[in-house]
Amino acid sequence: MELWFTEKQTPSLGITCKIKSTLIVEQTPYQHLAIIDTEQFGKMLVLDGMVQTTDVDEFVYHEMITMVGLNTHPNPRRVLIIGGGDGGTLREVVKHPAVEKATMVEIDRRVVETSIEFLPKISSALHGNPRAEVLIDDGIEYVKNNKNQFDLIIIDSTEPVGPAAGLFSAEFYRNIFESLKEDGLFVAQTESPFFNADLIRQVFADISSIYPITKLYLASVPTYPSGLWSFTMGSKKYDPENIGQETCPVSDTRYYTPAVHQAAFKLPKFVQELLIPKK
Amino acid sequence: MELWFTEKQTPSLGITCKIKSTLIVEQTPYQHLAIIDTEQFGKMLVLDGMVQTTDVDEFVYHEMITMVGLNTHPNPRRVLIIGGGDGGTLREVVKHPAVEKATMVEIDRRVVETSIEFLPKISSALHGNPRAEVLIDDGIEYVKNNKNQFDLIIIDSTEPVGPAAGLFSAEFYRNIFESLKEDGLFVAQTESPFFNADLIRQVFADISSIYPITKLYLASVPTYPSGLWSFTMGSKKYDPENIGQETCPVSDTRYYTPAVHQAAFKLPKFVQELLIPKK
Repeated sequence: MELWFTEKQTPSLGITCKIKSTLIVEQTPYQHLAIIDTEQFGKMLVLDGMVQTTDVDEFVYHEMITMVGLNTHPNPRRVLIIGGGDGGTLREVVKHPAVEKATMVEIDRRVVETSIEFLPKISSALHGNPRAEVLIDDGIEYVKNNKNQFDLIIIDSTEPVGPAAGLFSAEFYRNIFESLKEDGLFVAQTESPFFNADLIRQVFADISSIYPITKLYLASVPTYPSGLWSFTMGSKKYDPENIGQETCPVSDTRYYTPAVHQAAFKLPKFVQELLIPKK
Repeated sequence: MELWFTEKQTPSLGITCKIKSTLIVEQTPYQHLAIIDTEQFGKMLVLDGMVQTTDVDEFVYHEMITMVGLNTHPNPRRVLIIGGGDGGTLREVVKHPAVEKATMVEIDRRVVETSIEFLPKISSALHGNPRAEVLIDDGIEYVKNNKNQFDLIIIDSTEPVGPAAGLFSAEFYRNIFESLKEDGLFVAQTESPFFNADLIRQVFADISSIYPITKLYLASVPTYPSGLWSFTMGSKKYDPENIGQETCPVSDTRYYTPAVHQAAFKLPKFVQELLIPKK
Protein backbone atom coordinates (compact mmCIF):
# COMPACT_ATOMS: atom_id res chain seq x y z
CA MET A 1 0.00 0.00 0.00
CA GLU A 2 1.30 3.46 -0.87
CA LEU A 3 0.38 6.27 1.49
CA TRP A 4 0.55 9.87 0.26
CA PHE A 5 -0.03 13.02 2.31
CA THR A 6 -1.47 15.93 0.37
CA GLU A 7 -1.55 19.50 1.63
CA LYS A 8 -3.97 21.68 -0.25
CA GLN A 9 -1.89 24.85 -0.23
CA THR A 10 -4.81 26.63 -1.89
CA PRO A 11 -8.25 25.27 -2.88
CA SER A 12 -6.83 24.35 -6.30
CA LEU A 13 -3.17 23.51 -5.63
CA GLY A 14 -1.53 20.81 -3.57
CA ILE A 15 1.80 19.31 -2.67
CA THR A 16 1.78 15.54 -2.24
CA CYS A 17 4.42 13.43 -0.48
CA LYS A 18 4.85 9.67 -0.25
CA ILE A 19 5.08 8.69 3.39
CA LYS A 20 6.92 5.90 5.15
CA SER A 21 4.93 6.09 8.37
CA THR A 22 2.72 8.18 10.58
CA LEU A 23 4.47 8.89 13.86
CA ILE A 24 1.71 10.74 15.69
CA VAL A 25 -1.70 12.19 14.86
CA GLU A 26 -3.79 13.98 17.45
CA GLN A 27 -6.10 16.88 18.14
CA THR A 28 -4.54 19.26 20.66
CA PRO A 29 -6.56 21.98 22.44
CA TYR A 30 -5.36 24.38 19.73
CA GLN A 31 -4.97 22.50 16.46
CA HIS A 32 -4.70 19.20 14.61
CA LEU A 33 -1.12 17.92 14.95
CA ALA A 34 0.67 15.25 12.92
CA ILE A 35 4.26 14.18 12.51
CA ILE A 36 4.87 11.92 9.53
CA ASP A 37 7.97 10.39 8.02
CA THR A 38 8.20 11.18 4.29
CA GLU A 39 10.43 9.73 1.57
CA GLN A 40 11.40 13.12 0.14
CA PHE A 41 11.73 15.42 3.13
CA GLY A 42 12.29 13.13 6.10
CA LYS A 43 10.19 13.83 9.16
CA MET A 44 7.52 16.48 8.70
CA LEU A 45 5.46 18.45 11.22
CA VAL A 46 1.93 19.18 9.97
CA LEU A 47 -0.46 21.50 11.86
CA ASP A 48 -4.08 21.84 10.74
CA GLY A 49 -3.06 20.03 7.55
CA MET A 50 -0.31 22.52 6.68
CA VAL A 51 3.39 21.62 6.48
CA GLN A 52 5.30 23.51 9.18
CA THR A 53 8.79 22.12 8.90
CA THR A 54 10.70 19.12 7.58
CA ASP A 55 14.08 17.57 8.29
CA VAL A 56 15.35 18.30 4.78
CA ASP A 57 14.46 21.96 4.22
CA GLU A 58 14.02 23.36 7.76
CA PHE A 59 17.50 24.90 7.65
CA VAL A 60 16.40 27.53 5.15
CA TYR A 61 13.47 28.81 7.17
CA HIS A 62 15.15 28.58 10.56
CA GLU A 63 18.37 30.27 9.47
CA MET A 64 16.58 33.02 7.58
CA ILE A 65 14.05 33.86 10.30
CA THR A 66 16.89 34.18 12.85
CA MET A 67 20.25 35.18 11.34
CA VAL A 68 19.01 38.23 9.45
CA GLY A 69 17.76 39.86 12.65
CA LEU A 70 20.60 38.57 14.83
CA ASN A 71 23.18 40.00 12.43
CA THR A 72 21.33 43.30 11.99
CA HIS A 73 21.37 44.08 15.72
CA PRO A 74 24.92 44.84 16.93
CA ASN A 75 24.41 43.11 20.27
CA PRO A 76 21.31 40.86 20.44
CA ARG A 77 21.58 39.78 24.08
CA ARG A 78 17.88 39.16 24.84
CA VAL A 79 15.78 37.39 22.25
CA LEU A 80 12.10 36.45 22.36
CA ILE A 81 10.53 33.87 20.05
CA ILE A 82 6.73 33.79 19.74
CA GLY A 83 5.57 30.37 18.54
CA GLY A 84 8.25 28.19 16.97
CA GLY A 85 7.29 25.19 19.10
CA ASP A 86 9.33 22.74 17.02
CA GLY A 87 12.45 24.43 18.40
CA GLY A 88 14.30 25.09 15.12
CA THR A 89 14.28 28.85 15.58
CA LEU A 90 15.49 28.54 19.18
CA ARG A 91 18.28 26.19 18.06
CA GLU A 92 19.57 28.83 15.63
CA VAL A 93 19.21 31.75 18.06
CA VAL A 94 21.33 30.11 20.75
CA LYS A 95 24.11 29.53 18.21
CA HIS A 96 24.75 33.29 18.17
CA PRO A 97 27.52 34.19 20.63
CA ALA A 98 25.95 37.52 21.65
CA VAL A 99 22.72 35.91 22.88
CA GLU A 100 22.64 35.69 26.69
CA LYS A 101 19.10 34.41 26.97
CA ALA A 102 16.50 33.31 24.44
CA THR A 103 12.91 32.92 25.61
CA MET A 104 10.46 30.93 23.50
CA VAL A 105 6.72 31.31 24.17
CA GLU A 106 4.66 28.60 22.50
CA ILE A 107 0.94 28.30 23.14
CA ASP A 108 0.61 24.58 22.36
CA ARG A 109 2.47 22.31 24.78
CA ARG A 110 1.94 19.30 22.51
CA VAL A 111 3.95 20.87 19.68
CA VAL A 112 6.92 21.17 22.03
CA GLU A 113 6.49 17.69 23.53
CA THR A 114 6.04 15.87 20.22
CA SER A 115 8.91 17.77 18.58
CA ILE A 116 11.22 16.71 21.40
CA GLU A 117 10.05 13.12 20.95
CA PHE A 118 10.01 12.83 17.14
CA LEU A 119 12.12 15.69 15.70
CA PRO A 120 15.38 15.50 17.63
CA LYS A 121 17.45 17.29 14.98
CA ILE A 122 15.17 20.32 15.00
CA SER A 123 14.20 20.41 18.68
CA SER A 124 17.66 20.02 20.25
CA ALA A 125 17.58 23.39 22.06
CA LEU A 126 14.15 22.76 23.67
CA HIS A 127 15.69 21.02 26.68
CA GLY A 128 18.91 21.27 28.56
CA ASN A 129 20.24 24.48 27.02
CA PRO A 130 21.26 26.95 29.75
CA ARG A 131 20.62 30.00 27.55
CA ALA A 132 17.20 28.82 26.38
CA GLU A 133 13.94 29.33 28.29
CA VAL A 134 10.83 27.52 27.02
CA LEU A 135 7.45 28.79 28.23
CA ILE A 136 4.01 27.38 27.43
CA ASP A 137 1.96 30.54 27.27
CA ASP A 138 -0.01 32.88 25.02
CA GLY A 139 2.54 35.01 23.16
CA ILE A 140 0.08 37.89 22.81
CA GLU A 141 -0.35 38.13 26.59
CA TYR A 142 3.34 37.56 27.24
CA VAL A 143 4.33 40.49 25.07
CA LYS A 144 1.83 42.78 26.84
CA ASN A 145 3.36 41.86 30.20
CA ASN A 146 7.03 42.26 29.25
CA LYS A 147 7.78 45.80 28.13
CA ASN A 148 11.16 47.22 27.10
CA GLN A 149 12.81 43.83 27.47
CA PHE A 150 14.10 42.50 24.15
CA ASP A 151 16.72 43.32 21.54
CA LEU A 152 15.13 40.99 19.01
CA ILE A 153 11.68 39.41 18.79
CA ILE A 154 10.98 36.64 16.26
CA ILE A 155 7.40 35.77 15.33
CA ASP A 156 7.59 32.18 14.15
CA SER A 157 3.89 31.58 13.64
CA THR A 158 1.69 29.22 11.71
CA GLU A 159 -0.55 30.53 8.96
CA PRO A 160 -2.82 33.45 9.92
CA VAL A 161 -5.76 31.20 10.81
CA GLY A 162 -6.48 29.36 14.05
CA PRO A 163 -4.17 30.08 17.00
CA ALA A 164 -1.92 32.45 15.00
CA ALA A 165 -4.60 34.84 13.70
CA GLY A 166 -3.80 37.49 16.31
CA LEU A 167 -0.11 37.43 15.40
CA PHE A 168 -0.74 39.32 12.15
CA SER A 169 -2.56 42.36 13.58
CA ALA A 170 -1.50 46.00 13.90
CA GLU A 171 -2.32 45.87 17.61
CA PHE A 172 0.13 43.01 18.09
CA TYR A 173 2.87 44.87 16.19
CA ARG A 174 2.32 47.86 18.52
CA ASN A 175 2.64 45.61 21.56
CA ILE A 176 5.82 44.14 20.09
CA PHE A 177 7.13 47.71 19.76
CA GLU A 178 6.58 48.25 23.48
CA SER A 179 8.21 44.95 24.33
CA LEU A 180 11.38 45.83 22.41
CA LYS A 181 14.15 47.95 23.87
CA GLU A 182 14.71 51.39 22.39
CA ASP A 183 16.94 50.03 19.62
CA GLY A 184 15.15 46.69 19.19
CA LEU A 185 13.81 45.04 16.08
CA PHE A 186 11.51 42.17 15.17
CA VAL A 187 11.12 39.68 12.33
CA ALA A 188 7.90 37.86 11.41
CA GLN A 189 7.25 35.14 8.84
CA THR A 190 4.77 36.66 6.39
CA GLU A 191 3.79 33.96 3.86
CA SER A 192 4.25 33.78 0.07
CA PRO A 193 4.29 36.79 -2.25
CA PHE A 194 2.80 34.63 -5.00
CA PHE A 195 -0.22 33.43 -2.97
CA ASN A 196 -0.62 35.89 -0.07
CA ALA A 197 -0.17 39.28 -1.72
CA ASP A 198 -3.01 40.94 0.19
CA LEU A 199 -1.70 39.76 3.55
CA ILE A 200 1.82 40.97 2.78
CA ARG A 201 0.52 44.34 1.63
CA GLN A 202 -1.55 44.79 4.81
CA VAL A 203 1.16 43.61 7.19
CA PHE A 204 3.79 45.80 5.56
CA ALA A 205 1.54 48.84 5.73
CA ASP A 206 0.69 48.17 9.38
CA ILE A 207 4.31 47.70 10.44
CA SER A 208 5.41 50.75 8.41
CA SER A 209 2.92 52.87 10.34
CA ILE A 210 4.59 51.91 13.64
CA TYR A 211 8.32 51.29 12.96
CA PRO A 212 10.84 53.79 11.49
CA ILE A 213 12.41 51.03 9.37
CA THR A 214 10.28 48.31 7.73
CA LYS A 215 11.77 45.88 5.23
CA LEU A 216 10.71 42.63 3.59
CA TYR A 217 13.09 39.87 2.57
CA LEU A 218 12.79 36.50 0.84
CA ALA A 219 14.07 32.94 1.02
CA SER A 220 13.38 29.70 -0.87
CA VAL A 221 11.63 27.02 1.19
CA PRO A 222 10.60 24.06 -1.02
CA THR A 223 7.77 22.73 1.18
CA TYR A 224 6.03 26.10 1.62
CA PRO A 225 3.43 27.28 -0.91
CA SER A 226 5.14 28.55 -4.09
CA GLY A 227 8.57 27.84 -2.60
CA LEU A 228 9.21 31.57 -2.14
CA TRP A 229 8.72 32.79 1.42
CA SER A 230 8.70 36.30 2.88
CA PHE A 231 9.79 37.70 6.22
CA THR A 232 9.04 41.24 7.37
CA MET A 233 11.23 43.20 9.73
CA GLY A 234 10.22 46.21 11.82
CA SER A 235 13.19 48.01 13.36
CA LYS A 236 13.49 51.02 15.65
CA LYS A 237 17.07 51.93 14.72
CA TYR A 238 19.12 49.43 12.72
CA ASP A 239 18.75 48.99 8.96
CA PRO A 240 19.21 45.35 7.89
CA GLU A 241 20.57 46.48 4.52
CA ASN A 242 23.41 48.43 6.17
CA ILE A 243 25.05 45.72 8.22
CA GLY A 244 28.45 46.39 6.63
CA GLN A 245 29.43 42.87 7.56
CA GLU A 246 31.58 40.46 5.60
CA THR A 247 31.58 37.57 8.02
CA CYS A 248 28.97 35.92 10.24
CA PRO A 249 29.65 34.93 13.86
CA VAL A 250 27.68 31.73 13.26
CA SER A 251 29.67 29.67 10.76
CA ASP A 252 27.71 26.42 10.55
CA THR A 253 24.91 27.71 8.32
CA ARG A 254 23.80 25.96 5.14
CA TYR A 255 21.78 28.79 3.55
CA TYR A 256 22.64 32.08 5.27
CA THR A 257 25.72 34.11 4.47
CA PRO A 258 26.15 37.88 4.82
CA ALA A 259 25.93 38.10 1.00
CA VAL A 260 22.68 36.10 1.02
CA HIS A 261 21.42 38.44 3.78
CA GLN A 262 21.99 41.47 1.54
CA ALA A 263 20.62 39.75 -1.56
CA ALA A 264 17.43 38.65 0.22
CA PHE A 265 16.28 42.29 0.32
CA LYS A 266 16.65 42.77 -3.47
CA LEU A 267 13.04 42.08 -4.31
CA PRO A 268 11.55 41.00 -7.62
CA LYS A 269 9.63 43.87 -9.13
CA PHE A 270 6.20 42.31 -8.49
CA VAL A 271 7.09 41.99 -4.79
CA GLN A 272 8.39 45.57 -4.57
CA GLU A 273 5.07 46.69 -5.98
CA LEU A 274 3.16 45.00 -3.12
CA LEU A 275 4.92 47.29 -0.67
CA ILE A 276 3.98 50.60 -2.25
CA PRO A 277 1.12 52.17 -0.29
CA LYS A 278 -2.13 52.39 -2.25
CA LYS A 279 -3.29 55.94 -2.76
CA MET B 1 -16.46 15.84 -11.25
CA GLU B 2 -13.15 17.32 -10.10
CA LEU B 3 -10.13 16.77 -12.33
CA TRP B 4 -6.64 17.15 -10.89
CA PHE B 5 -3.35 16.94 -12.76
CA THR B 6 -0.43 15.61 -10.72
CA GLU B 7 3.20 15.88 -11.78
CA LYS B 8 5.46 13.53 -9.90
CA GLN B 9 8.44 15.85 -9.61
CA THR B 10 10.36 12.99 -8.02
CA PRO B 11 9.22 9.39 -7.30
CA SER B 12 8.00 10.52 -3.87
CA LEU B 13 6.91 14.14 -4.39
CA GLY B 14 4.19 15.67 -6.52
CA ILE B 15 2.50 18.95 -7.32
CA THR B 16 -1.22 18.64 -7.99
CA CYS B 17 -3.45 21.21 -9.70
CA LYS B 18 -7.21 21.37 -10.14
CA ILE B 19 -7.99 21.75 -13.82
CA LYS B 20 -10.83 23.46 -15.63
CA SER B 21 -10.30 21.71 -18.94
CA THR B 22 -7.88 19.80 -21.13
CA LEU B 23 -7.15 21.82 -24.26
CA ILE B 24 -4.98 19.34 -26.14
CA VAL B 25 -3.30 16.02 -25.41
CA GLU B 26 -1.21 14.23 -28.02
CA GLN B 27 1.92 12.19 -28.66
CA THR B 28 4.29 14.10 -30.95
CA PRO B 29 7.27 12.41 -32.66
CA TYR B 30 9.39 13.64 -29.74
CA GLN B 31 7.32 13.66 -26.57
CA HIS B 32 3.91 13.57 -24.91
CA LEU B 33 2.35 17.03 -25.13
CA ALA B 34 -0.57 18.47 -23.15
CA ILE B 35 -1.96 21.94 -22.61
CA ILE B 36 -4.42 22.17 -19.74
CA ASP B 37 -6.30 25.04 -18.16
CA THR B 38 -5.74 25.11 -14.38
CA GLU B 39 -7.50 27.04 -11.63
CA GLN B 40 -4.29 28.18 -9.93
CA PHE B 41 -1.86 28.88 -12.75
CA GLY B 42 -4.03 29.44 -15.83
CA LYS B 43 -2.97 27.59 -18.97
CA MET B 44 -0.15 25.13 -18.48
CA LEU B 45 2.12 23.39 -21.00
CA VAL B 46 3.06 19.86 -19.92
CA LEU B 47 5.68 17.77 -21.80
CA ASP B 48 6.24 14.12 -20.86
CA GLY B 49 4.18 14.80 -17.74
CA MET B 50 6.39 17.68 -16.54
CA VAL B 51 5.19 21.29 -16.20
CA GLN B 52 7.07 23.49 -18.67
CA THR B 53 5.36 26.83 -18.28
CA THR B 54 2.14 28.43 -17.03
CA ASP B 55 0.37 31.72 -17.63
CA VAL B 56 0.81 32.80 -14.01
CA ASP B 57 4.48 32.17 -13.29
CA GLU B 58 6.11 32.06 -16.74
CA PHE B 59 7.36 35.63 -16.33
CA VAL B 60 9.93 34.60 -13.75
CA TYR B 61 11.55 31.91 -15.86
CA HIS B 62 11.38 33.79 -19.15
CA GLU B 63 12.75 37.05 -17.78
CA MET B 64 15.51 35.37 -15.82
CA ILE B 65 16.71 33.09 -18.64
CA THR B 66 16.94 36.09 -21.00
CA MET B 67 17.57 39.41 -19.24
CA VAL B 68 20.60 38.31 -17.22
CA GLY B 69 22.49 37.39 -20.39
CA LEU B 70 21.11 40.26 -22.48
CA ASN B 71 22.19 42.79 -19.85
CA THR B 72 25.60 41.17 -19.31
CA HIS B 73 26.58 41.50 -22.98
CA PRO B 74 27.12 45.17 -23.93
CA ASN B 75 25.60 44.76 -27.38
CA PRO B 76 23.65 41.51 -27.88
CA ARG B 77 22.76 41.91 -31.55
CA ARG B 78 22.50 38.22 -32.58
CA VAL B 79 20.76 35.84 -30.21
CA LEU B 80 20.13 32.11 -30.61
CA ILE B 81 17.55 30.20 -28.56
CA ILE B 82 17.76 26.38 -28.46
CA GLY B 83 14.39 24.90 -27.56
CA GLY B 84 11.91 27.31 -25.99
CA GLY B 85 9.12 26.23 -28.34
CA ASP B 86 6.40 27.94 -26.30
CA GLY B 87 7.89 31.28 -27.39
CA GLY B 88 8.23 32.93 -23.99
CA THR B 89 12.00 33.25 -24.20
CA LEU B 90 11.80 34.65 -27.73
CA ARG B 91 9.17 37.17 -26.59
CA GLU B 92 11.55 38.51 -23.93
CA VAL B 93 14.62 38.54 -26.20
CA VAL B 94 12.97 40.70 -28.86
CA LYS B 95 12.01 43.26 -26.20
CA HIS B 96 15.70 44.19 -25.87
CA PRO B 97 16.52 47.16 -28.11
CA ALA B 98 20.03 45.94 -29.03
CA VAL B 99 18.74 42.68 -30.54
CA GLU B 100 18.76 42.81 -34.34
CA LYS B 101 17.78 39.20 -34.91
CA ALA B 102 16.75 36.37 -32.61
CA THR B 103 16.72 32.84 -34.00
CA MET B 104 14.82 30.11 -32.18
CA VAL B 105 15.54 26.48 -33.04
CA GLU B 106 12.92 24.09 -31.67
CA ILE B 107 12.98 20.41 -32.54
CA ASP B 108 9.25 19.75 -32.01
CA ARG B 109 6.97 21.57 -34.45
CA ARG B 110 3.89 20.65 -32.41
CA VAL B 111 5.13 22.60 -29.37
CA VAL B 112 5.31 25.73 -31.52
CA GLU B 113 1.97 25.13 -33.25
CA THR B 114 0.02 24.33 -30.10
CA SER B 115 1.58 27.22 -28.16
CA ILE B 116 0.48 29.61 -30.91
CA GLU B 117 -3.02 28.15 -30.73
CA PHE B 118 -3.51 27.85 -26.96
CA LEU B 119 -0.92 30.06 -25.22
CA PRO B 120 -1.26 33.43 -26.98
CA LYS B 121 0.20 35.47 -24.13
CA ILE B 122 3.40 33.43 -24.08
CA SER B 123 3.78 32.71 -27.79
CA SER B 124 3.21 36.21 -29.19
CA ALA B 125 6.66 36.51 -30.79
CA LEU B 126 6.41 33.17 -32.63
CA HIS B 127 4.72 34.76 -35.63
CA GLY B 128 4.82 38.10 -37.35
CA ASN B 129 7.81 39.56 -35.53
CA PRO B 130 10.35 40.94 -38.03
CA ARG B 131 13.30 40.41 -35.67
CA ALA B 132 12.34 36.84 -34.79
CA GLU B 133 13.22 33.76 -36.84
CA VAL B 134 11.59 30.45 -35.87
CA LEU B 135 13.21 27.28 -37.20
CA ILE B 136 12.04 23.68 -36.68
CA ASP B 137 15.35 21.88 -36.46
CA ASP B 138 17.71 19.95 -34.20
CA GLY B 139 19.51 22.53 -32.07
CA ILE B 140 22.56 20.29 -31.66
CA GLU B 141 23.04 20.11 -35.43
CA TYR B 142 22.22 23.79 -35.92
CA VAL B 143 24.94 24.87 -33.51
CA LYS B 144 27.54 22.67 -35.28
CA ASN B 145 26.67 24.33 -38.61
CA ASN B 146 26.72 27.95 -37.43
CA LYS B 147 30.11 28.91 -36.04
CA ASN B 148 31.19 32.30 -34.73
CA GLN B 149 27.69 33.72 -35.22
CA PHE B 150 26.10 34.68 -31.90
CA ASP B 151 26.54 37.18 -29.11
CA LEU B 152 24.20 35.25 -26.81
CA ILE B 153 22.89 31.68 -26.89
CA ILE B 154 20.07 30.61 -24.58
CA ILE B 155 19.44 26.92 -23.93
CA ASP B 156 15.77 26.76 -22.96
CA SER B 157 15.45 23.01 -22.70
CA THR B 158 13.17 20.51 -21.06
CA GLU B 159 14.52 18.22 -18.36
CA PRO B 160 17.66 16.24 -19.27
CA VAL B 161 15.73 13.19 -20.46
CA GLY B 162 14.14 12.52 -23.86
CA PRO B 163 14.82 15.07 -26.63
CA ALA B 164 16.88 17.37 -24.36
CA ALA B 165 19.40 14.81 -23.06
CA GLY B 166 22.12 15.99 -25.46
CA LEU B 167 21.72 19.60 -24.33
CA PHE B 168 23.45 18.92 -21.00
CA SER B 169 26.70 17.41 -22.37
CA ALA B 170 30.25 18.78 -22.39
CA GLU B 171 30.40 18.20 -26.16
CA PHE B 172 27.38 20.44 -26.65
CA TYR B 173 28.89 23.19 -24.48
CA ARG B 174 32.05 23.02 -26.65
CA ASN B 175 29.96 23.35 -29.81
CA ILE B 176 28.14 26.31 -28.24
CA PHE B 177 31.58 27.87 -27.60
CA GLU B 178 32.37 27.61 -31.32
CA SER B 179 29.00 29.04 -32.28
CA LEU B 180 29.53 32.12 -30.13
CA LYS B 181 31.49 35.15 -31.29
CA GLU B 182 34.80 35.88 -29.57
CA ASP B 183 33.10 37.81 -26.76
CA GLY B 184 29.89 35.74 -26.64
CA LEU B 185 28.18 34.08 -23.72
CA PHE B 186 25.46 31.51 -23.12
CA VAL B 187 22.85 30.75 -20.47
CA ALA B 188 21.24 27.35 -19.83
CA GLN B 189 18.46 26.31 -17.49
CA THR B 190 20.03 23.82 -15.10
CA GLU B 191 17.29 22.47 -12.80
CA SER B 192 16.84 22.68 -9.02
CA PRO B 193 19.71 22.81 -6.52
CA PHE B 194 17.51 20.99 -4.00
CA PHE B 195 16.68 18.04 -6.26
CA ASN B 196 19.34 17.99 -9.02
CA ALA B 197 22.59 18.59 -7.15
CA ASP B 198 24.57 16.01 -9.13
CA LEU B 199 23.46 17.45 -12.47
CA ILE B 200 24.34 20.98 -11.42
CA ARG B 201 27.73 19.87 -10.13
CA GLN B 202 28.55 18.06 -13.40
CA VAL B 203 27.28 20.81 -15.70
CA PHE B 204 29.14 23.51 -13.76
CA ALA B 205 32.38 21.50 -13.89
CA ASP B 206 31.97 20.84 -17.63
CA ILE B 207 31.27 24.48 -18.48
CA SER B 208 34.11 25.68 -16.22
CA SER B 209 36.52 23.48 -18.16
CA ILE B 210 35.62 25.29 -21.40
CA TYR B 211 34.68 28.91 -20.55
CA PRO B 212 36.85 31.51 -18.79
CA ILE B 213 33.86 32.73 -16.75
CA THR B 214 31.25 30.27 -15.39
CA LYS B 215 28.55 31.43 -12.98
CA LEU B 216 25.33 30.01 -11.59
CA TYR B 217 22.33 32.11 -10.62
CA LEU B 218 18.90 31.43 -9.11
CA ALA B 219 15.25 32.44 -9.45
CA SER B 220 11.98 31.38 -7.80
CA VAL B 221 9.56 29.56 -10.12
CA PRO B 222 6.59 28.16 -8.16
CA THR B 223 5.63 25.38 -10.59
CA TYR B 224 9.14 23.95 -10.92
CA PRO B 225 10.38 21.30 -8.49
CA SER B 226 11.33 22.89 -5.13
CA GLY B 227 10.42 26.36 -6.46
CA LEU B 228 14.11 27.31 -6.67
CA TRP B 229 15.58 27.14 -10.15
CA SER B 230 19.15 27.47 -11.40
CA PHE B 231 20.65 28.88 -14.57
CA THR B 232 24.30 28.47 -15.55
CA MET B 233 26.20 30.97 -17.67
CA GLY B 234 29.39 30.33 -19.62
CA SER B 235 31.02 33.53 -20.87
CA LYS B 236 34.13 34.20 -22.94
CA LYS B 237 34.67 37.77 -21.76
CA TYR B 238 31.92 39.50 -19.80
CA ASP B 239 31.30 38.86 -16.11
CA PRO B 240 27.57 38.96 -15.22
CA GLU B 241 28.40 40.20 -11.72
CA ASN B 242 30.20 43.27 -13.09
CA ILE B 243 27.49 44.84 -15.19
CA GLY B 244 27.79 48.16 -13.39
CA GLN B 245 24.25 48.91 -14.45
CA GLU B 246 21.56 50.73 -12.52
CA THR B 247 18.82 50.67 -15.12
CA CYS B 248 17.53 48.10 -17.57
CA PRO B 249 16.70 48.91 -21.20
CA VAL B 250 13.63 46.66 -20.93
CA SER B 251 11.29 48.33 -18.45
CA ASP B 252 8.20 46.10 -18.57
CA THR B 253 9.60 43.29 -16.44
CA ARG B 254 7.77 41.85 -13.43
CA TYR B 255 10.64 39.96 -11.77
CA TYR B 256 13.95 41.17 -13.24
CA THR B 257 15.67 44.36 -12.14
CA PRO B 258 19.41 45.10 -12.21
CA ALA B 259 19.43 44.66 -8.42
CA VAL B 260 17.70 41.26 -8.74
CA HIS B 261 20.29 40.37 -11.42
CA GLN B 262 23.14 41.03 -8.98
CA ALA B 263 21.35 39.34 -6.06
CA ALA B 264 20.62 36.18 -8.10
CA PHE B 265 24.35 35.34 -8.04
CA LYS B 266 24.58 35.49 -4.21
CA LEU B 267 24.14 31.80 -3.62
CA PRO B 268 22.98 30.03 -0.47
CA LYS B 269 25.92 28.24 1.09
CA PHE B 270 24.69 24.75 0.16
CA VAL B 271 24.50 25.84 -3.49
CA GLN B 272 27.97 27.42 -3.42
CA GLU B 273 29.28 24.11 -2.14
CA LEU B 274 27.91 22.27 -5.19
CA LEU B 275 30.19 24.34 -7.41
CA ILE B 276 33.48 23.58 -5.68
CA PRO B 277 35.39 20.97 -7.73
CA LYS B 278 35.79 17.64 -5.98
CA LYS B 279 39.40 16.77 -5.38
